[in-house]
Amino acid sequence: MISETKTYQTIVIGAGSGGMTVAIGLAGLGRRVAMIEGKFIGGDCTNVGCVPSKTLIHLVNDRDVELPSQSVLVEVQTKRNQLRDRETVEVEHMENLDLIWGKARFLAPKRLEVTQPDGSLLELSADNIVIATGSRPRHMDIAGLPTERMLTNESLFEIEDAPRHLVIVGSGVIAMEMAFAFRKLGSQVSVITRGGRVMSSAISEAAEALHTALTERDIAVYYNAKPQSYDEATNTLHILTNGVPATIEGADRVLLAVGRVRNIDTLNLEQAGVAFDDKDGIKIDSYGQTNVPGIYAIGDVTPTSHFTHSANAQGRRVVQKIAFPFLPASSPEPFYPSATFSDPEVARVGLTPEQIAERYHPKMVKRLRVELSALDRGYTDGVTTGFIIVDAVRLTGRILAVTIVGPRASEILSFFTLAITEKISLYKIYRLVYPYPTFSGGIQKVADAFMRETLPNLKAEILNYIRYRFVAPPRQSGQKAGARLPQA
Amino acid sequence: MISETKTYQTIVIGAGSGGMTVAIGLAGLGRRVAMIEGKFIGGDCTNVGCVPSKTLIHLVNDRDVELPSQSVLVEVQTKRNQLRDRETVEVEHMENLDLIWGKARFLAPKRLEVTQPDGSLLELSADNIVIATGSRPRHMDIAGLPTERMLTNESLFEIEDAPRHLVIVGSGVIAMEMAFAFRKLGSQVSVITRGGRVMSSAISEAAEALHTALTERDIAVYYNAKPQSYDEATNTLHILTNGVPATIEGADRVLLAVGRVRNIDTLNLEQAGVAFDDKDGIKIDSYGQTNVPGIYAIGDVTPTSHFTHSANAQGRRVVQKIAFPFLPASSPEPFYPSATFSDPEVARVGLTPEQIAERYHPKMVKRLRVELSALDRGYTDGVTTGFIIVDAVRLTGRILAVTIVGPRASEILSFFTLAITEKISLYKIYRLVYPYPTFSGGIQKVADAFMRETLPNLKAEILNYIRYRFVAPPRQSGQKAGARLPQA
Repeated sequence: MISETKTYQTIVIGAGSGGMTVAIGLAGLGRRVAMIEGKFIGGDCTNVGCVPSKTLIHLVNDRDVELPSQSVLVEVQTKRNQLRDRETVEVEHMENLDLIWGKARFLAPKRLEVTQPDGSLLELSADNIVIATGSRPRHMDIAGLPTERMLTNESLFEIEDAPRHLVIVGSGVIAMEMAFAFRKLGSQVSVITRGGRVMSSAISEAAEALHTALTERDIAVYYNAKPQSYDEATNTLHILTNGVPATIEGADRVLLAVGRVRNIDTLNLEQAGVAFDDKDGIKIDSYGQTNVPGIYAIGDVTPTSHFTHSANAQGRRVVQKIAFPFLPASSPEPFYPSATFSDPEVARVGLTPEQIAERYHPKMVKRLRVELSALDRGYTDGVTTGFIIVDAVRLTGRILAVTIVGPRASEILSFFTLAITEKISLYKIYRLVYPYPTFSGGIQKVADAFMRETLPNLKAEILNYIRYRFVAPPRQSGQKAGARLPQA
Repeated sequence: MISETKTYQTIVIGAGSGGMTVAIGLAGLGRRVAMIEGKFIGGDCTNVGCVPSKTLIHLVNDRDVELPSQSVLVEVQTKRNQLRDRETVEVEHMENLDLIWGKARFLAPKRLEVTQPDGSLLELSADNIVIATGSRPRHMDIAGLPTERMLTNESLFEIEDAPRHLVIVGSGVIAMEMAFAFRKLGSQVSVITRGGRVMSSAISEAAEALHTALTERDIAVYYNAKPQSYDEATNTLHILTNGVPATIEGADRVLLAVGRVRNIDTLNLEQAGVAFDDKDGIKIDSYGQTNVPGIYAIGDVTPTSHFTHSANAQGRRVVQKIAFPFLPASSPEPFYPSATFSDPEVARVGLTPEQIAERYHPKMVKRLRVELSALDRGYTDGVTTGFIIVDAVRLTGRILAVTIVGPRASEILSFFTLAITEKISLYKIYRLVYPYPTFSGGIQKVADAFMRETLPNLKAEILNYIRYRFVAPPRQSGQKAGARLPQA
């Protein structure tokens, strides 16, 4: 039974970081906005993602904090709850913004029905609807594993005692961050991953560095592995690794970090005519516009990278598009960096290896690699694992992609986001002065290496450039479709 | 008595970071080089500066290292000695490079006399002579203070027990870094400084932040203060602070960090006709050339900033000039960043406040300030002190100067060195995506603030720009001469 109908300029579905960016941004500009949320203000980031995980990572790393593991976990919850409360109050008191608790589904392209917590229905309509419902952890059945021993990122930060032995299934961002954090908290940690390496989204050199670091911390990694069953009596997880059965003893908690499922199944997208598919989610243009005029999508429901900063950046572009529709659509889609707060950190920006292979003949691309251990800062800080890897166009020194593995990689990365976006070549980067002794001083060594490999062979480099400049790259096997590549 | 005469393409006086950069660079390019050193390979940086201090700072910060304070100090020495030995072997085995131990003085513009350790004399001549003799700590007499209780950066890393109470005289880079490091090592620390603030070379906001941080760590700071006398029987240092006598009890060590003296007094520069003065040292152009053709100077003996990376950068430019004299002299002098590894770190790049005041009418400049505590990373990491301050030209968004105070400031800074050098405005910086949650994410908030303060007042901003663009800034009282300002 429909109790009420309300009309807005914009309705945002989902109060995560992306949705909040749009709702607060448009309300601040005087637009009448509704934001619909089924669970928590702040979404995954505030509640079960970045904020609790980075608080935990900080607490286990900072020498100024010396807390027993239980207090650390309580402190993580306290800080998380404080931020959630603050954000909730902010949203509730924001002018022009109605916060509506409930679950939304499309009735028509510009009309939604919301099922409220008390079961009553609400009908809303708007000129613009922004889908920002995010994603949830993918589940997996493990025979014999009781629910209370199984964790995902949604329940991980509710536990109040560090596991004695935490088994992590998966090897992506969440898996890597939590493996190091819980190890430092005192838990024994084992990682089991389906593939032959960790972090399949990063270059293989990053996976090798992480493998080294995991091993150095006595974190067991099982490759080509999957869980089979769990024996509650003995806390034993039975797995297959490389086709061979193995057992992980004393495993009192199992964290599933095996990917994400987009929250689009209950939205009734078909009713609105919004195009999506199982692989990429909701299809959008560079301004977050779906195929249906006035319907936008941002964050995890789209094919763009699944990071808070990506959702925010998309949200900012949607605000621009809705608030200033006649602004020139000149600005191309930005480069979305990625950062994993493992130890060492892994940070990346630019084209993927597949994108480079699609666009450039291999003879056009040079890989430059500087080890952090070769830097004086690496020496003083005892850093043995880590590097800066830059893929650049030969001769021109144009940067295509960067991966940094090491301490503060996430903070150093934006230098390269700026260089790639503004097309600043390694010749110009060579001329800068970097503070000593820093890890970012390695940027200079990357530019030095480029100069050293280019200048003495200038004639050959020019001939190579002329020869391969317009030669199509050889077709890759298993090449991805590349429908929404960022611009080079 | 002269035993031998040798001729080189280039002679480098001093084997510190600057001198090594030139000697190894030119020898690597096949030039015949001599490097003269009176003490240690690696200079201050390796032996009594960056390397031992950053090793110490790392050891007292990293939670993975849990050593008693004595072991920390021994480890600092061990790592320092290993690096010194490695660098010495490298230099000794370098082709085309003669390492000559001794003290050099000019006999003529292209001729040097070296007094060797055994007292014998050596005469050397070369087409190019590079003065890279660095600096030494300024001394100060404190009545009653025995030599063994007085430290400078040259003796600090020889001690094997943490002082019970370390008094630091001075409040520059060395003073601030060591205050936090020894406090964390367990010493009581007191700082006494001549002026009304710490770190006179930084903007006052940085001094305020450091004051807060020092106080939070129970480091006493005495302003407008100077040491008067020391009473050995009671380990009491008597000082005057704001004209009032005070005592610092139990002060078993006093570290003098009251500035540097250039090592140019025994070089016999007058004989070579090299121009210098007491205030700025040896006068050079942007390629390190002195007034005498073929004589260069780099590093601490010049007026350029006294950092290892500055000496290195100058050294690289001297190598270019000597090895490729016909290269166009197009490249302007780079911006020299500075970094202090206190806790919080302080990092700066761009024009000084005096330079901005000389070149821009106050109405043309906007100051943007973002608190790190307002960032989500600041929240998760419990950061209460720290900021990014950007001085930019109004309307155009061109960046003039940046100071960052906070964790990893030294690593974030190079983003701005690139932006300032390549004249990338805040409008372009606004469009980038920054990894979340990071401190460098604060860069986005700086750009947001600029947009928020500029776009809604565009008409007024344009009028202001037109009005003040060519208005000379009012004359500052106590303005510096500005003979060697970096380009804006």
